[in-house]
Amino acid sequence: MIEEFLKYNISCVNNYLHSYMDELNENIPNKLKEAMEYSLFAGGKRLRPILLLEISNTFGQSMENSIPLACGIEMIHTYSLIHDDLPAMDNDDFRRGKLTNHKVFGEDIAILAGDALLNYGFEIMINHSVNLSGDNQKYYLKAIQEITTASGAAGMITGQVADILNVEDSENIEKLDFINNFKTGQLIKASVLSGAIVQGVSDKVIKELVDYSQKIGLAFQIVDDILDVVGDQKKIGKNLHSDEKNNKKTYVDIYGIQKSKSIVSSLMKEALNHLSECNIKNSNIIELTKFICGRDY
Amino acid sequence: MIEEFLKYNISCVNNYLHSYMDELNENIPNKLKEAMEYSLFAGGKRLRPILLLEISNTFGQSMENSIPLACGIEMIHTYSLIHDDLPAMDNDDFRRGKLTNHKVFGEDIAILAGDALLNYGFEIMINHSVNLSGDNQKYYLKAIQEITTASGAAGMITGQVADILNVEDSENIEKLDFINNFKTGQLIKASVLSGAIVQGVSDKVIKELVDYSQKIGLAFQIVDDILDVVGDQKKIGKNLHSDEKNNKKTYVDIYGIQKSKSIVSSLMKEALNHLSECNIKNSNIIELTKFICGRDY
Repeated sequence: MIEEFLKYNISCVNNYLHSYMDELNENIPNKLKEAMEYSLFAGGKRLRPILLLEISNTFGQSMENSIPLACGIEMIHTYSLIHDDLPAMDNDDFRRGKLTNHKVFGEDIAILAGDALLNYGFEIMINHSVNLSGDNQKYYLKAIQEITTASGAAGMITGQVADILNVEDSENIEKLDFINNFKTGQLIKASVLSGAIVQGVSDKVIKELVDYSQKIGLAFQIVDDILDVVGDQKKIGKNLHSDEKNNKKTYVDIYGIQKSKSIVSSLMKEALNHLSECNIKNSNIIELTKFICGRDY
Repeated sequence: MIEEFLKYNISCVNNYLHSYMDELNENIPNKLKEAMEYSLFAGGKRLRPILLLEISNTFGQSMENSIPLACGIEMIHTYSLIHDDLPAMDNDDFRRGKLTNHKVFGEDIAILAGDALLNYGFEIMINHSVNLSGDNQKYYLKAIQEITTASGAAGMITGQVADILNVEDSENIEKLDFINNFKTGQLIKASVLSGAIVQGVSDKVIKELVDYSQKIGLAFQIVDDILDVVGDQKKIGKNLHSDEKNNKKTYVDIYGIQKSKSIVSSLMKEALNHLSECNIKNSNIIELTKFICGRDY
């Protein structure tokens, strides 16, 4: 059931992403567009846009205003992966089972394709805003604000820098939580919150969703750490043990596999409680929450 | 006179940029903030924000809405310089008389500081939009749209990619104009246009300003090419002959110094005519136009 839901939604998000890419004008060099599309359509699970769309769907009657936000956030996520994989950063050769962007297009084009995806994410969000009015526009702009803050210097990039500076540091769970919260947590939180904000939900609901998204954000990262050690390389599609290679500490290093799995399990329960607290009974969101907290390992 | 005008305005733009940087929350790692500020306050002439502010000033009564646009565009410009200087790109050691960002902070932090400045430019622009209403908001969003399109995949980044792909190509003036128009021209055009759009000017004025900004954008680039060959290294603050080093063709290669200077002179006259056509008599803009077309050589 969740597989069908994901399959349908991935296809839907991909169609919109293709439309946006097709709108880029004809002057753009083929190589730049190819490099952007190579990573954008490298087989991502589209969890962030799907979370955003499904939360938005739960609170609203129209999806029209959530589509550009969902595609914008996926472009921003994709740019962060391209730059993260660069030789000066994590120096990874594979991502989602394919060669990383710079291995195919060269470092210079990979840097620019990343820049272009970040910029284009903003473009498609802002381009939609000029056609709105009244409360629709007000909520929509606040949703963009949530996303741009989350992806920025005081959000995701803080996590990336802290991650770099943390290499070879001692095992310190506070630092690790800080990195996880910023590096992956902020954009997941923004996916959830902007989906709700764009529909003008109450502050009480937002408060619950902040807590909800923190739980699934952390669970998502711990599951990723577990998969990095025990996962099936073909299934994950990137080099396993990359954390070990990069001397990065993870939950698994500190707590071991079993304890890490039980932490994820607790986080999932708490996340589901927060959904219940704000009266979200949408079974797709509940299943999606379970999926995020329990990807195969 | 132009010197005093520039000095006053540079100081004004710097103050606003400092305020925005101070607003970044306390979680941000010092090294990231230092790297962002290092390049943002490396002594740029602030031509883009000053153009934007002065054009806006000519058409409007309040500068309030043009400040975030001006600072946003300067952050976007600064990010493009940091990424342009990277080893995988132009591999430059000096910029504005100081070591380039990656020489001081390392490639990883330089990439992220660039990303953070691009993102923060969008953040400060969008953050201001949520406080506006009515026509003010409508014009302001259209101005952001102008800037984000100009800095993106079909704008400045197209120029950067074309520049990379053009290395060692034959002398081809159409290609060179294409690169100049996108790589430097788009952001200069956006500075001029967004300053006017935010004040809700007529389509006739926009049309003249499009032509005006194309002339000064091209002139600006040719002057830069001339300075790269004959300029005083200390005054310019970067390695001279970098175009030659990078095998990049310029106006000077194709036309020689004298002919290039006379092309700049013609462009300046045409630019001043376009100002006159849309009835701009503001002496600061006229002097600024002359300054852009006649930096010391």
